[in-house]
Amino acid sequence: MAEAIRQVTLGVLLFPGFEPLDVIGPVELFACAAEVSIVFISERPGSIPASKGSVQLIASTSFDDILSEKQPVPDWLLVPGGVGTRMEVKNPSILQFVSAVGPKASLCMSVCTGTALLAASGILDGFKATSNKRAFDWVASNSDKVKWERQARWVHDGNFVTSSGVSAGMDMAVYVLKATLGEERASEIAAYVEYLPATDAAADPFADLSFKPKV
Amino acid sequence: MAEAIRQVTLGVLLFPGFEPLDVIGPVELFACAAEVSIVFISERPGSIPASKGSVQLIASTSFDDILSEKQPVPDWLLVPGGVGTRMEVKNPSILQFVSAVGPKASLCMSVCTGTALLAASGILDGFKATSNKRAFDWVASNSDKVKWERQARWVHDGNFVTSSGVSAGMDMAVYVLKATLGEERASEIAAYVEYLPATDAAADPFADLSFKPKV
Repeated sequence: MAEAIRQVTLGVLLFPGFEPLDVIGPVELFACAAEVSIVFISERPGSIPASKGSVQLIASTSFDDILSEKQPVPDWLLVPGGVGTRMEVKNPSILQFVSAVGPKASLCMSVCTGTALLAASGILDGFKATSNKRAFDWVASNSDKVKWERQARWVHDGNFVTSSGVSAGMDMAVYVLKATLGEERASEIAAYVEYLPATDAAADPFADLSFKPKV
Repeated sequence: MAEAIRQVTLGVLLFPGFEPLDVIGPVELFACAAEVSIVFISERPGSIPASKGSVQLIASTSFDDILSEKQPVPDWLLVPGGVGTRMEVKNPSILQFVSAVGPKASLCMSVCTGTALLAASGILDGFKATSNKRAFDWVASNSDKVKWERQARWVHDGNFVTSSGVSAGMDMAVYVLKATLGEERASEIAAYVEYLPATDAAADPFADLSFKPKV
């Protein structure tokens, strides 16, 4: 179980081709808590293009700022997915950063194919984890030592919380807020953003790839 | 009813203090459709700070670029909310832009307190509209000629689609995708982002401010 918190820094990893909602879904919810300060981290600071929609987010802090201890190691780490992960699993800099910071963080979270970066860095070995359903086989191919759970909205094992695809990151964030700030605060934050979260980590209709959500 | 589309440009308005998920929730969904190209528009191009979470998004196009016809008027307009709307309802530049472009757009959408900007510009007069529940009275104070609907996840009237708070923008986006690209495509896009949308515009538990979502 995650521990109650007073004040934490959440480091959010950015790389070219990140999925916009993988980042902003959880960030919106975490930023509603005064206890959580957010810092965007990338290989090089500046404007980082997302996978789609002409979205660019700005990273203020580099991997080196943290690895060289110019900036503190964040208490929590969030690794988004997106088409860029297909390149980044081969990028030694990001794998080095994730493997240095992930195990030190009291919570290391991933959304969607962001789990591939945790798996490729080796730090998920021996832990249970999930990921995006449509990219699951590719994500799982990054480590045969992870205990992959295909049917899960999110999975919490040790200090790792990995979530299913894209919007699942929001449900994972509500779960983390409940675990660290309590049920009442998490419910207030969900109400503030007028969000009805999925609350059962094991319920995952999207694990059946033929499932068509009602629209 | 919104018309079927072949190719549209979605202009997304940015201003200091926009709510991150009001923008990225709909943008994530619309950007899944190859038929929708997205352009971020602000008073001055460049990095625009959000209301929270150290988020900054980059706007490529200025109001003047469009008003002077250097850039085309977008087919669709999306106006997010956020704490910045409290200032922006008094900003003649943004009101002029909204009142020039909103009525020309085949769909003019708002999320959350973004509806206040449409109301303050006068273009919503005579139309039905909704907004964020916690800020509803303030939003409604911007025009007594709008037919305000307090209990609604979203409201579609004429070329205006206004949504309730923050995450409601995602449900509005799925509704617009269904109306313009059809049910099957909208369902595929929701499945791609592993999102179970709210599908009943009239169902709005958050209209009761004492409602506490299960977390």
